[in-house]
Amino acid sequence: MNHKPLKPGEEVTQAALSADASLGFIGHVETPWKTLADCPKRADPDGPVSLVVVDPPWDRALLGVGDFAWIELYLWFHEARRDLLVIAPGHAEGLRGVFSVRSPVRPNPIAVTTVRLLGIEGNTLRVAGLEALDGTPLLDIKPGRCPVL
Amino acid sequence: MNHKPLKPGEEVTQAALSADASLGFIGHVETPWKTLADCPKRADPDGPVSLVVVDPPWDRALLGVGDFAWIELYLWFHEARRDLLVIAPGHAEGLRGVFSVRSPVRPNPIAVTTVRLLGIEGNTLRVAGLEALDGTPLLDIKPGRCPVL
Repeated sequence: MNHKPLKPGEEVTQAALSADASLGFIGHVETPWKTLADCPKRADPDGPVSLVVVDPPWDRALLGVGDFAWIELYLWFHEARRDLLVIAPGHAEGLRGVFSVRSPVRPNPIAVTTVRLLGIEGNTLRVAGLEALDGTPLLDIKPGRCPVL
Repeated sequence: MNHKPLKPGEEVTQAALSADASLGFIGHVETPWKTLADCPKRADPDGPVSLVVVDPPWDRALLGVGDFAWIELYLWFHEARRDLLVIAPGHAEGLRGVFSVRSPVRPNPIAVTTVRLLGIEGNTLRVAGLEALDGTPLLDIKPGRCPVL
């Protein structure tokens, strides 16, 4: 995987992350964002329509999801590097531990994003406000608690 | 693992979840809740103090976390069964797909919970409002966006 070169002061660990549990992808998202550079920094709940495709047998677990106006998508940021400890974020001065920023770069690159649910047809959800890369694997869907505006 | 017996109408999948990605545990939590039955349904931000222990080398990535009053903990609910599609939730009538409830029972049992940060000493965070089982593995920490009250 091609990673951006480290900036001064950034720190990585050489210790291999252990494999303590496994994730199964239950589907994927289809978005207008074809490269990481295309992805918006923040989701726009009035942004373009994206699709969330849920593979069988998990599409059966969508029963009742249509009752919600907002849902949380749990995504796996498969292109993120996992060895960074301290980064120099673009939006702030100085150095920050990865646990003090919401960067996608982290040991377990799980992203949770709240999107507006527009409709469901079969195993496919139409949503607005998704800022993830096209093809990002899907881990989970939960009813949204509150829109993040 | 001992699971509760299925209720009428509940559905499981026989299809094995594939192992598409691996998670590494970066620490664990220490809470007053020693059994699943003890765990509160909802976090109380004024509840008892719990500890979040971050293992090296990941403790280095805590740099700057102390600036936040609220943090999100990403936890792995290691005792949850992963094969349920449709459940009969205790809090509602009828049957619901697991993606329409926030139950810990789901194919990838990742929980995100917002807690009040009381202090950090070395690799250990003191927090209030954590409803997870004692010993639950830690996956990630992110700055909180808003307290969930």
